[in-house]
Amino acid sequence: MSAQRVTTIPVRSAAGRYRVVFDRGGIERLGRHLRTVLPSERVVVVSDATVAALHATPALAALQRARLRPELIVTPAGEPAKTLESARRLYEQLADLRVDRSTGVIALGGGVVGDLAGFVAATYLRGLPLIHVPTTTLAQADAAIGGKTAVDLPAGKNLVGAFHAPRLVLADTDTLATLPERHLRAGLAEVAKVAFTIEPALLRGLEGRFDLERALVAAARAKARIVSADEKERGRRMVLNYGHTVGHALEALGGYKRWLHGEAVAHGIQAAARIATLTGVGSEAWEARQWALLEMLGLGGEFPRVSIAKLLTYMSLDKKARAGVPVFVLTARVGVVRVRRSLSVDTVTRALASLGAQP
Amino acid sequence: MSAQRVTTIPVRSAAGRYRVVFDRGGIERLGRHLRTVLPSERVVVVSDATVAALHATPALAALQRARLRPELIVTPAGEPAKTLESARRLYEQLADLRVDRSTGVIALGGGVVGDLAGFVAATYLRGLPLIHVPTTTLAQADAAIGGKTAVDLPAGKNLVGAFHAPRLVLADTDTLATLPERHLRAGLAEVAKVAFTIEPALLRGLEGRFDLERALVAAARAKARIVSADEKERGRRMVLNYGHTVGHALEALGGYKRWLHGEAVAHGIQAAARIATLTGVGSEAWEARQWALLEMLGLGGEFPRVSIAKLLTYMSLDKKARAGVPVFVLTARVGVVRVRRSLSVDTVTRALASLGAQP
Repeated sequence: MSAQRVTTIPVRSAAGRYRVVFDRGGIERLGRHLRTVLPSERVVVVSDATVAALHATPALAALQRARLRPELIVTPAGEPAKTLESARRLYEQLADLRVDRSTGVIALGGGVVGDLAGFVAATYLRGLPLIHVPTTTLAQADAAIGGKTAVDLPAGKNLVGAFHAPRLVLADTDTLATLPERHLRAGLAEVAKVAFTIEPALLRGLEGRFDLERALVAAARAKARIVSADEKERGRRMVLNYGHTVGHALEALGGYKRWLHGEAVAHGIQAAARIATLTGVGSEAWEARQWALLEMLGLGGEFPRVSIAKLLTYMSLDKKARAGVPVFVLTARVGVVRVRRSLSVDTVTRALASLGAQP
Repeated sequence: MSAQRVTTIPVRSAAGRYRVVFDRGGIERLGRHLRTVLPSERVVVVSDATVAALHATPALAALQRARLRPELIVTPAGEPAKTLESARRLYEQLADLRVDRSTGVIALGGGVVGDLAGFVAATYLRGLPLIHVPTTTLAQADAAIGGKTAVDLPAGKNLVGAFHAPRLVLADTDTLATLPERHLRAGLAEVAKVAFTIEPALLRGLEGRFDLERALVAAARAKARIVSADEKERGRRMVLNYGHTVGHALEALGGYKRWLHGEAVAHGIQAAARIATLTGVGSEAWEARQWALLEMLGLGGEFPRVSIAKLLTYMSLDKKARAGVPVFVLTARVGVVRVRRSLSVDTVTRALASLGAQP
C-alpha cells in the first residue's frame, strides 16, 4: 500500500467514525483493511451474480489470507431485486449460516447490493457490522457513503430503510475496469450532482480535463463532508437529493428496469434545472451549462416522453414529500441551493411538459 | 387528569427523552397526551383485530376531539402474525394512505402490535414518530418501554428488528379489564423477571399483598431505569433477558402458538433457576422461591416435556448467541445477576432433563 495509491477520507457518524478508503487494487488487501474494524473473524460477503463472478474469488482469497473466515451469499443483480423478498431470503440465509452479532457483512457490489445488504445488516439481530466494498462509480462516489440503506416497494423507491453506518468503505477503482460503459456513465450523474450543488471546483474540473478517479474521490470527499455534518438529513444533507425527486419517480415508473438510477437522476437534474429557470430561481444559462455537462458525461439527452400524471403520483409518495407535496432541491447557480417545499403542481407540470413529457 | 391517577416515568434515549405515562382511563385523553409530541395532525393507529374491536373507537374519537386526523389499520392478532409479510402489508397500507415522515404511528395493543408496528415505524421512510399505547400487562410493564422493535422469522423470535424509541408510552390500565385472564397472567412473567433480577422490593411486594397496578408501575420504573442507562444492550440491559434464552426457544418450537410469550418466559425462568442451582451460581432455596412466586402468579407449573435437542437448536440461533453458544442470564439471589456465555451443552441438557424435558 504505497502512500500515493491510497486516499483516506474520514466520516463522522453517531455510531462512530469510519473511513472511506480509495485503494487501487485494494480488494487484494481486503483482509488487511478489515483487521481493525471487525469484532470477530467471521464475515459474510454479499454480492450479486454479476459482481460475484468478477470479484468474489479474489475477495474471498484476500479474506482467507488474513485468517478471516468468509462465506459468500449471492443475490440477483439489478434494482428489481432490491425488494423485501430479497431481504427475507438474505435473513434466512444468515440464519442458516448461524450468523451472530459479531459477524461482519461485506456488501461487495454497486448501489443495489449496498442498499440491500446494508438494510439486512441494519436489521438482522438488530444490527450487524457492515463493510461496503463498492464496485461501481455510483457506489464509490456516493451510495456507499453516509449510512443510508433501503429496499424498494412497488409504490416507490427506497421507501423502507434504515440508517446504518458502515465500519469501513473500501473503494477499489480497479473494479471499474470491468464495469459496463452504461453503468460507468450512469454513476457520473451523482458526481455531476455534487459538482452542481456543492463543489464549484469539481464542476470546473469535469468541464476541463476529465479524470475519473479524481472525480470520484472529489465527489466522495464532498459527500463525506455533508453527511458528517448532517447524518440523518435534518438539513444540509438535503442538497444531495438534487435531481432525485423526479429521478426516483422515473425509476418507479419504469419498474426500476427502464433507467439505471444514475440515468434517472440525470433526467431529474434536467427537470430541476428547468423548474429553476421557470420559477426564476436559476437562469437559462445555468440550465444550459448543466445540460451541457450531462451531455459531455454521456448522460441526459432528451427527457423521456413519459406521462406527467404518473410522474406526479410517484412524486407525491416520495420519502421527502409532506402531505403529498414533493420537495424539490433547486440550484440558483453552482453551489447555491434552494429547497422548495410548496411548488405548485402547475409549475411542475409546465416544466415537465416543456421538456417533452406527456400531459 | 388528577395527580393521583397519573404516574409519569421518564426514559432517556439517544433519540431524546420520552415519558411512560400510566393514566387510568387515559385512552379517553389520548389526543391531549399526544399534542406536544407529534409533528403534524396526521396519525395512523395500528391495532390488531381483537384490540381494535375493544379500544379503537374511543381512541379514534379521542384523537378527533383533539383535532388530530387519525386513520386505522387493523392487523391480525397473535404472535404468528409478527412476520415480515405482516410488515410488508403494513408498508403498503401506509403507502396507500400517503403517509409522510411527519405522520405519527400509534401502536395500540399488546407486545405483538408494539413490536410489529414499531418495526414498521422504524423502517418506513427510514423512521416515523412512534407512540405506544400498550393494552396488556406484558406491554405496559415491559415491551412498550426501551425502543426494541422486531418481527420473527421461521428460524427464531425477534431475529429481524431495529431500535426505535417512542415519543410517548401511554398505559391505560383500564384496558386490562377486558384482557383475557390467560394474557393478564402471562404478562406477569416479565414483572417476576424484574423482581428476581433487579427489584428486591418488588419481589417482596409480589409475595405479599399483590396489587396489579402497583406491580406494573414498579416493573416499568425498573425497566425505564435500565434502558435509560443502556439503551442498546451493551451491558446492564442484558439482565432483562432473564428467562428469555429458553423462553424464546420454547416459543419458536411451539410455532409461536403453543405458549404466550410470558408463559414461555416463565418456563425459561424455571430453566435458568435450575441451571443456576446445578452450576452453584444459585441455590435450591432461591430456585424454590422463584418457582413458588411463578406458581402464585398462575404461571410456571410443570416444565414442558419438549425435545431438548430442538430447544438447543433454537437456542443456538438466539440473537445473543456467539458462534452458536447461547448466553444465559442467571441469578445468584435476588438482584444478583450473572451472565454466562460459555455454559456447556451438557450442563444445559442436564438441567432441562431434570425438569422433565425429553432427551
